Amino acid sequence: MLSINENYSNLNPSYLFPEMKKRVSELLINWPSDHIYNLGEGDTTQPLSSNVARAMVQKVKEMASGVSFMGYSDPVGLLKLRKSIAHYYATNFKIPLDISEIFISDGAKTDLFNIQTIFNDKMKIAIQDPSYPVYIDSIVINGRTEKKNQIYDNLIFLNGTPENNFIPSLPKKRVDLFYLSFPNNPTGAVATRKQLKEFVDYANENGSIIIFDSVYSWFIREKNYPKSIYEIPEAEKCAIEIQSFSKSLFRFFDLSSRFVVI
Amino acid sequence: MLSINENYSNLNPSYLFPEMKKRVSELLINWPSDHIYNLGEGDTTQPLSSNVARAMVQKVKEMASGVSFMGYSDPVGLLKLRKSIAHYYATNFKIPLDISEIFISDGAKTDLFNIQTIFNDKMKIAIQDPSYPVYIDSIVINGRTEKKNQIYDNLIFLNGTPENNFIPSLPKKRVDLFYLSFPNNPTGAVATRKQLKEFVDYANENGSIIIFDSVYSWFIREKNYPKSIYEIPEAEKCAIEIQSFSKSLFRFFDLSSRFVVI
Repeated sequence: MLSINENYSNLNPSYLFPEMKKRVSELLINWPSDHIYNLGEGDTTQPLSSNVARAMVQKVKEMASGVSFMGYSDPVGLLKLRKSIAHYYATNFKIPLDISEIFISDGAKTDLFNIQTIFNDKMKIAIQDPSYPVYIDSIVINGRTEKKNQIYDNLIFLNGTPENNFIPSLPKKRVDLFYLSFPNNPTGAVATRKQLKEFVDYANENGSIIIFDSVYSWFIREKNYPKSIYEIPEAEKCAIEIQSFSKSLFRFFDLSSRFVVI
Repeated sequence: MLSINENYSNLNPSYLFPEMKKRVSELLINWPSDHIYNLGEGDTTQPLSSNVARAMVQKVKEMASGVSFMGYSDPVGLLKLRKSIAHYYATNFKIPLDISEIFISDGAKTDLFNIQTIFNDKMKIAIQDPSYPVYIDSIVINGRTEKKNQIYDNLIFLNGTPENNFIPSLPKKRVDLFYLSFPNNPTGAVATRKQLKEFVDYANENGSIIIFDSVYSWFIREKNYPKSIYEIPEAEKCAIEIQSFSKSLFRFFDLSSRFVVI
């Protein structure tokens, strides 16, 4: 029988992000706009940096010349780029990564959606609530959870609330796969080393996997907060970190006397 | 329980493409290489065309300037590009496409893999045999067929053989979704208008969908062979065509006294 993927009907509308948008609008009315960086939903507002543009132009020119042209890149990514990333982790975080552990893709969102498909579809999956809607939407669309009486059967929500400073506690039931994101989108909450270590220890003790979304780590200014899950001992045994350089320029911004809304 | 996606173990190794590679190697020994265009598996061998490179450099420069910079493109693709494609279909094939029917993606292979997921997972799917391995591999990995006693339960193979000039007959059992590709990879066989119309009529009579992979249409030299399935009346009611410009320069090649191996 031909019909539309019935999992689409199991998607829940997200009320959180529209509500946030409304409150940000109110904030913008009450504060002069030069005091607010709005990093929430929406479009990009700045041109490409000149370094990036220069590198892109140079690469296009190389690819258009019979002398410097190269064919398909390695499917896991350009060796030079992977070496640079290994160097970056070693220099900035003292994390020794082998280049065979680094994979370049077309973007963090695609990977966050697709990576679950390397595992079976009977896993118990834990998701922070609130969190980036792609995690839950991808799980639902892929048919990895069924919705019975408005409850998703394979999903466990880890609640971030004002009471726990938006850092959820460990699950009480067994979890096979975690989607964790610190700094969290949308709360901005960052786990301390001690808090993140609890998740890593749980995963290693229970044979679970942590998908760690660290794309907002560029926003961390305070020392002593982990920017990579691999700063936590033994995390390399249980965690897959998904990182992006798309927000990396943020570390150069002057944030004095400005609000940041992510 | 955490374990690897068990569908991977249902994949069959493809013997066809290694066998083809072997035969092409033999051919290359027996014929001077300037008589053979080998379009089979492997890497690209030519640099970007200067037109493409120029357009890419210009766009990067636009994106790096605060004046000409633009934000995210429409998720379905740049309007200008979609208008150009509509114009291309109108001019070359007299096919009137509305731009709302045109979607730009990151490549034909991704779409061929992902498009099945908009439908339910209980469909009967027909695939040409032989054909591009991505069709069957994507169906198997997505868990849309089960393998019992070496037989895929939801799959129907449409055999291309020397006897039918590699153009398969209509299926005897009901099919919900077709993967069709003319010119076929790897046989190169192209359906005539009459043959393709039989598939379109079957689909419209049975409420089936045809995913039509036309990325090799640039290789068709003879007139009267359809380069787009939308050249067939009523195909717009049942067919999704997936096309790519990645092979489009081929139409300018001089093929006199040359073999072509795709």
